[in-house]
Amino acid sequence: MPEPLVVPTPTSVTGALPDGLLTAFAGYEDALATNDLAALDAWFAPGENTLRGDAAGLLVGHDAISGFRGARSARSGTVARGIRSLHVRVIDPRHAVIVSVNAPDAGGAGLLTQLWSLSAAGDWQVEVAQVAGPPAAINPTVWRLVGNPLMAAAASGTLAGETIAVKDLYDIIGFTVGAGNPAYLREASPATETAAAVAALLGAGASVRGIAQTDEFAYSIAGDNEHYGTPPNVRVPGGLPGGSSSGPAAAVALGQASIGLATDTAGSIRVPASYQGLWGLRSTHGAVDRAGLLPLAPSFDTVGWLTRTPGVLRAAAAASLDPSQQTSAAQADAPTRFAVSSALVFACDDDVQDVFVAGLDRLTRAGLLPAPDLVDVGDLAEALRIFRAIQMAEAWKSNGDWVTAHPGTLGAAVAGRFEIASRTDPAAEAEARIALAAARERLDAVLDGRILLLPSASSTAPSRHANPAAIDATRTATLTLTSPAGIGGYPALSVPLFESRGKPVGLCLVGPRHTDLALIDIGAKLAAGR
Amino acid sequence: MPEPLVVPTPTSVTGALPDGLLTAFAGYEDALATNDLAALDAWFAPGENTLRGDAAGLLVGHDAISGFRGARSARSGTVARGIRSLHVRVIDPRHAVIVSVNAPDAGGAGLLTQLWSLSAAGDWQVEVAQVAGPPAAINPTVWRLVGNPLMAAAASGTLAGETIAVKDLYDIIGFTVGAGNPAYLREASPATETAAAVAALLGAGASVRGIAQTDEFAYSIAGDNEHYGTPPNVRVPGGLPGGSSSGPAAAVALGQASIGLATDTAGSIRVPASYQGLWGLRSTHGAVDRAGLLPLAPSFDTVGWLTRTPGVLRAAAAASLDPSQQTSAAQADAPTRFAVSSALVFACDDDVQDVFVAGLDRLTRAGLLPAPDLVDVGDLAEALRIFRAIQMAEAWKSNGDWVTAHPGTLGAAVAGRFEIASRTDPAAEAEARIALAAARERLDAVLDGRILLLPSASSTAPSRHANPAAIDATRTATLTLTSPAGIGGYPALSVPLFESRGKPVGLCLVGPRHTDLALIDIGAKLAAGR
Repeated sequence: MPEPLVVPTPTSVTGALPDGLLTAFAGYEDALATNDLAALDAWFAPGENTLRGDAAGLLVGHDAISGFRGARSARSGTVARGIRSLHVRVIDPRHAVIVSVNAPDAGGAGLLTQLWSLSAAGDWQVEVAQVAGPPAAINPTVWRLVGNPLMAAAASGTLAGETIAVKDLYDIIGFTVGAGNPAYLREASPATETAAAVAALLGAGASVRGIAQTDEFAYSIAGDNEHYGTPPNVRVPGGLPGGSSSGPAAAVALGQASIGLATDTAGSIRVPASYQGLWGLRSTHGAVDRAGLLPLAPSFDTVGWLTRTPGVLRAAAAASLDPSQQTSAAQADAPTRFAVSSALVFACDDDVQDVFVAGLDRLTRAGLLPAPDLVDVGDLAEALRIFRAIQMAEAWKSNGDWVTAHPGTLGAAVAGRFEIASRTDPAAEAEARIALAAARERLDAVLDGRILLLPSASSTAPSRHANPAAIDATRTATLTLTSPAGIGGYPALSVPLFESRGKPVGLCLVGPRHTDLALIDIGAKLAAGR
Repeated sequence: MPEPLVVPTPTSVTGALPDGLLTAFAGYEDALATNDLAALDAWFAPGENTLRGDAAGLLVGHDAISGFRGARSARSGTVARGIRSLHVRVIDPRHAVIVSVNAPDAGGAGLLTQLWSLSAAGDWQVEVAQVAGPPAAINPTVWRLVGNPLMAAAASGTLAGETIAVKDLYDIIGFTVGAGNPAYLREASPATETAAAVAALLGAGASVRGIAQTDEFAYSIAGDNEHYGTPPNVRVPGGLPGGSSSGPAAAVALGQASIGLATDTAGSIRVPASYQGLWGLRSTHGAVDRAGLLPLAPSFDTVGWLTRTPGVLRAAAAASLDPSQQTSAAQADAPTRFAVSSALVFACDDDVQDVFVAGLDRLTRAGLLPAPDLVDVGDLAEALRIFRAIQMAEAWKSNGDWVTAHPGTLGAAVAGRFEIASRTDPAAEAEARIALAAARERLDAVLDGRILLLPSASSTAPSRHANPAAIDATRTATLTLTSPAGIGGYPALSVPLFESRGKPVGLCLVGPRHTDLALIDIGAKLAAGR
């Protein structure tokens, strides 16, 4: 037999307490305690105007709220808590706001503000709710370790006061590298030196806030690590954050760090930057020292950064790029001509195409950009095939021994990729290397010193609940966009310039090798003049 | 000239939008952006019924809200943010609820729910507000380092699934000890071994969640570290957390860890346990190995734990106590007689005296406790003098060299204590050691195998804004209560059993040496039967 409802005594009431209101409040708490989804659905007012907000964002409409509840597992949905105080503000006999402080059995305090209204049928229902639970010590989807700081700055400099979220692929002295996989982490030894890219930022005055999550071995662009969970996307509640630099990107988007130190082999910086509305630079291949970085595919692996502002991105890049290359002729001569490939644009979802075309048109009409030249970048499917062949061969060389020795420890999507990679044929790899060199020469010739403009990803952030096939299709389309920079070893900047129905879309600038800083300056001008 | 107000366009509206409402909303955001305290005061409705809640708790009444704003510095008060979406639910021409999602310049997203009402004078004012800002990566008042986990369990056992907040005085292999002082931390070397008390918990299946803050060198019972800030008190918003084990206690109260591994020399576990409504055990002096623990005053230093439940406390103690002592006659024979000293009760604030006397009366009338015997514990001022003399002498021996070499690096209150300690006279110390031995013998005789019952602290949690003189007076009164356990080397358990106007007051059980587990069992029965 269910226990009878305990109707709490209000701490304060203004106005005349309507009949049934407190019983309804108690009924809602009871439904929450038992995770009674049908009852919770009934306590929320039907229709498109019901609101429920919490730390993860605002849900609009009864269906969205109901869907969110359904997605929570029975266990995490159940909330055992007592009411510590209860304040009722009666507006009229049919409306009241209730503010309650609750004490979860698991510790901390929660706060709940609800607008209750009496329906035509005589039922009290929640029209608006804001829910706050106790803060967690750490968000494990974003971070593996966090400190205040984890490592202090090594000197003062242009990055003084900035905080770094270090992707869990870089060595930090005294700490282990986890590479997004718990089994790998367990066997890792503490690093005896700090990676060059981390040291460069520390030397310019930044401190390390923590070690941030990555897709396993950086071999994904989704950002949905099966072991540690999917980080939030601040700009697209319910959307994937993008990966593999999912943790650094989310940390920066959340304001929990100001620099995400990341890597980009096939889009791992550009994709989360695009999905989350951040600045992201994949540096020229080889222009930043990769010592102390766990490799995925060394022919394409690059160091790079995610930030909220172009100023911090530029300072991070300037502190990290090989000084001899910063003062080279290439770095000094900023490109002044731009190129667009319609084949690359057509690889995108319709909404991204629309936003990109309209956005470029706006920028050129505003005089911020000269009209770009249309270029033919050749057979994109063939370019992607070559890129993937080399990436797979090198990924297997980097990680195959470990993967073989640890069956069953990888998430399904990454395991599948390694499984295909394990079948790399040496002859096919040799052929692909020759094709790669040719493709690179062809791209150099086609772009001819111009900056290639394209969307940073083929879509806005997909839903976290998208099926694997849909995510894989998005992956292939996005890799079509990201692989040219990999083939050319070019720097690529994602500028948070566009939006499709509130969801960010990055404008990607792919420049000649060693134009890293010039790209940021150009991107900053576009963003400022927008 | 101030910029004109930008009145945002609502994302959705139900009902007829009243005149002036959105302008009022924009005016409030503008006042927040400029931290215009007078304007913010005016936007909130006057009187006792206005509510404002956030992660730190619920403020009731216009004065409390105004006081909170005044306490924020101009810099931290200023909030630069844009509005991302805005939903208006009009209840009637004089009432509306507005829910807005904002985008702070510093990253992340904020959520705000407000009940607006039109005053008799025709002004729109906020009657109720719930505010949520972006979550921080780490709460630096509670933690110095946090991990997922920071260190994994070493085995399975009775503490499987439990998480430890380790006070920043214990060695953890590979990590430094900071002792609550940034200068000390900077010079510290990573530990080469893990402290015995940490290893015992890891060996029983718990993992380390992180390294938690402490008052400097554990030499305080306030919990107001000047360098890292004052942790929250979940049960008393605006109240001190108690110290020196402030971080472990707050971590456990917040639900961010389930075991606070702490130390108690003169109340550093019992005081935060009492202030925050937690279970806290100071173990029998010497009964838990202190290897790898930074000493304060070794004659009194003890290992202990803070938890939310007696079950976890008992498991932590059982895993940590020297096994030879757990099976001794003393541990096996639980005391059945109890004692009360009216002098110790009179040392407390009136409200604590009332709560304690009424609480004991309730427990005895319920048959949970036999009527305690009244005992005369002697001259409390003299006992405290002896305790402090030895504590000061040993604190200076432990830390004097470091303190002397680092002038100006300690917070004022702790610096003052070390300054007095530095003047310890060897002859006076020798005299005090003789007096201490005599006092201990006397206490043993007076208590005669009974459990001494007393309040765990002389007051409920003082306000964070109390002046130093008031905090010092509370400190002296509380040390009068805590020093007998130090003098006798007794275990002391704080049970979260009482409340004074919603603020917790611990019932302290001081038992004969090596009755640690028996005390927890007795405390658990009292709590269950309450």
